[in-house]
Amino acid sequence: MKEMRLLLHVSDNDRWSIALGNAINFLKDVGEDNADVVIVANGTAAASYAYSDKIETMEVLADKGVQFKACRNSLKKLCAEGSVCINEDALPTFVKVVSAGISEIVYKQQEGYVYVKP
Amino acid sequence: MKEMRLLLHVSDNDRWSIALGNAINFLKDVGEDNADVVIVANGTAAASYAYSDKIETMEVLADKGVQFKACRNSLKKLCAEGSVCINEDALPTFVKVVSAGISEIVYKQQEGYVYVKP
Amino acid sequence: MKEMRLLLHVSDNDRWSIALGNAINFLKDVGEDNADVVIVANGTAAASYAYSDKIETMEVLADKGVQFKACRNSLKKLCAEGSVCINEDALPTFVKVVSAGISEIVYKQQEGYVYVKP
Repeated sequence: MKEMRLLLHVSDNDRWSIALGNAINFLKDVGEDNADVVIVANGTAAASYAYSDKIETMEVLADKGVQFKACRNSLKKLCAEGSVCINEDALPTFVKVVSAGISEIVYKQQEGYVYVKP
Repeated sequence: MKEMRLLLHVSDNDRWSIALGNAINFLKDVGEDNADVVIVANGTAAASYAYSDKIETMEVLADKGVQFKACRNSLKKLCAEGSVCINEDALPTFVKVVSAGISEIVYKQQEGYVYVKP
Repeated sequence: MKEMRLLLHVSDNDRWSIALGNAINFLKDVGEDNADVVIVANGTAAASYAYSDKIETMEVLADKGVQFKACRNSLKKLCAEGSVCINEDALPTFVKVVSAGISEIVYKQQEGYVYVKP
């Protein structure tokens, strides 16, 4: 367990750019060896993994140890609403799908991650 | 005191749908017996209790133990601005009005509730 | 160290009004002698210090001990994007520029400040 643990919560597709910038700046500022970063995406942001133009940036961060999570409830809801249907197998391999993003956010805070909403 | 304590902060009327979905998913995922949920509404979200089309969903959640709070400062401000004037007596009985939503949010976190901004 | 420590995170210029209202209401509700308030501005909100029409309100709060911080990364990004270039020397004296707002938000929470996103 590293000293600095950051949890970024992204719930809107249009906040990804800010969230990824936060992760990049944080790792640069405190040092990659001192920081754990988890990004939990729910709402429309959960679907972004499938078609975002920021996948390459995410991959670079994933290679540095940043964890990316997607909320299954959100993916199901977006499909049921007729918004977008995403097969979990089509998501990038660095993305881990969790049953409920909201629970993941609570668990991570209980593990000492500091919550920030970009 | 239950193991999982979630505090949802709703400050915009148009975020209620997401916040209520979060509460529903959270209770389903971790189990109603294991979770306490408090929703603090300020800003335009405080007035939603009086006219929202989601009152029935809120009532179902209130019956499951979810606590709903409204910020008095916000209600007064909305009235003073000429936006909407709401008599506290007209709010649903499951809503508790607190003097300042911002303080309630701090108190609840000090009591171990985990903050999430939907 | 005071008992009540509040950290307000402002990342959008149009959320300043709400954030300042939160700070005012919080100090009034819990008492200025019992509360420490820090406001960290990043994103477009970092530039607001240079031209906001709310500087006077900020100054009154700063005189009451509220700390105002601006993210240097955000100021640089806004300039690089051609949005607005702000010389740090032109910022009000009550504003302290930090290298990375995201790190400041983590540090402050580790110091016991309770996070709220207005």
